[in-house]
Amino acid sequence: MRRSDRLVALTNYFLENPREHVSLPYFSTLYNAAKSSISEDLDIIDRVFSDEGIGRLETVAGAAGGVKFIPDYTAEKSKQFITDLCDTLEDSERLLPGGYLYMSDLLGNPALVKEIGRIFASKFTESNIEAVVTVATKGIPLAYAVATFLNVPVVIVRRDPMVTEGSSVSINYVSGSSRKIQTMVLPKRSLREGANVCIIDDFMKAGGTINGIVSLLGEFNANVKGIAVLAEADDEEDERVVEDYLSLVKITHVDLKQKKIDVRPGNFQNK
Amino acid sequence: MRRSDRLVALTNYFLENPREHVSLPYFSTLYNAAKSSISEDLDIIDRVFSDEGIGRLETVAGAAGGVKFIPDYTAEKSKQFITDLCDTLEDSERLLPGGYLYMSDLLGNPALVKEIGRIFASKFTESNIEAVVTVATKGIPLAYAVATFLNVPVVIVRRDPMVTEGSSVSINYVSGSSRKIQTMVLPKRSLREGANVCIIDDFMKAGGTINGIVSLLGEFNANVKGIAVLAEADDEEDERVVEDYLSLVKITHVDLKQKKIDVRPGNFQNK
Repeated sequence: MRRSDRLVALTNYFLENPREHVSLPYFSTLYNAAKSSISEDLDIIDRVFSDEGIGRLETVAGAAGGVKFIPDYTAEKSKQFITDLCDTLEDSERLLPGGYLYMSDLLGNPALVKEIGRIFASKFTESNIEAVVTVATKGIPLAYAVATFLNVPVVIVRRDPMVTEGSSVSINYVSGSSRKIQTMVLPKRSLREGANVCIIDDFMKAGGTINGIVSLLGEFNANVKGIAVLAEADDEEDERVVEDYLSLVKITHVDLKQKKIDVRPGNFQNK
Repeated sequence: MRRSDRLVALTNYFLENPREHVSLPYFSTLYNAAKSSISEDLDIIDRVFSDEGIGRLETVAGAAGGVKFIPDYTAEKSKQFITDLCDTLEDSERLLPGGYLYMSDLLGNPALVKEIGRIFASKFTESNIEAVVTVATKGIPLAYAVATFLNVPVVIVRRDPMVTEGSSVSINYVSGSSRKIQTMVLPKRSLREGANVCIIDDFMKAGGTINGIVSLLGEFNANVKGIAVLAEADDEEDERVVEDYLSLVKITHVDLKQKKIDVRPGNFQNK
């Protein structure tokens, strides 16, 4: 295969297989090229990936040496994305009875969801995450987007056990906003003991749900390495029960009468 | 930018933006290259994409001309994927009480889910799909995977309305297996009248749930262009209520006593 062709094929390979360790001889055989040629290809790809803010190729030296694509997202691009998201969310048409915001169109847009996944994943690059945990149902697409870039499985916490998941561990927790006692379940098979995990969700108010997930993960002795939500709401009535988290945007004020929504960047940029 | 660098950047662009129409002048400006050079780049990329079974670049002639990446999946690769999936599912460790199969590990694997999305999307390439519809919760990741390749939004039908989604249309339907009357809801805002849609789900037994989705979509005058499920089960007791669908695998027999599961390729390969 010629260099030009190899560059296309290799770029596709890396983008489709983030964080997968591949040896140079594997590519040599696959594309029928000398190891030195492949090395030069990888230099070109690494340079363009860095220049374009796509990520980088991490080389592993030694006998078991090889290369791994680590996706990235530049701080500049995140900032622009967050600014645009704030503008989109401030549209008064999004207001629903009770002061809720309609966000399903955003969460239903796969390209946007993927972008959010890339942004969150870029913060967890060094955290050695082994699984992404979320709670059904709105956080699911975001969790998959993050997990794709981290190349790890998704684990879904549910409100009630499903017959198709086998034996489960369940806990009761107090919902932050409604102060009701609720249940959360995680199938035993879904997570190994002591795994490093991050928690992803679409929305956080007082944080009762996320706190519940943390307790449930405690039953699996999991290490919660990070918590990230798309949007957080300023909750004047309830004290926040989760402290260390990332948010892309913060809904600071909703005025139903004036039909005005204030959305500001969350704490993501400062972390 | 040099050709080698452009090939990497362009490949990334197409893979990240499937089915998006881009004009040649856009790339000319972005990479500071003559239109003729970009044209040659596109020829190389198109050839490698075809050879590797990644897809193809569709050129649109004329003043509003440009190019569009159409992802594909070869029949040969689908066949291999389905064979491997059958083997994986026949593992007796997957047996749960009641004859259910544990599949959450597969549905929790983002790379596998993406592959399934690519396979289904390749069948709907010419169907002019405008939205992918699924029902909460297990079908959600598959629906996003398909939607990513088709570059269209995902619409999620729920069992109960959520306060964060505004006014909804609901229907009652009879579940095929339990013969219970159940409810399904779709927010009014989530789908425009008369849209072309496909329905994606993880599992189908008699097909009552999918039939329910079809009825609900009727309230939106949607055109159901296709139905695809990961796995179908042979249901001896109930007649199938959905006729025209695609399935990757078919669970033909589950023997709880002998701990034996028979899984065969679904109808996908013959359609």
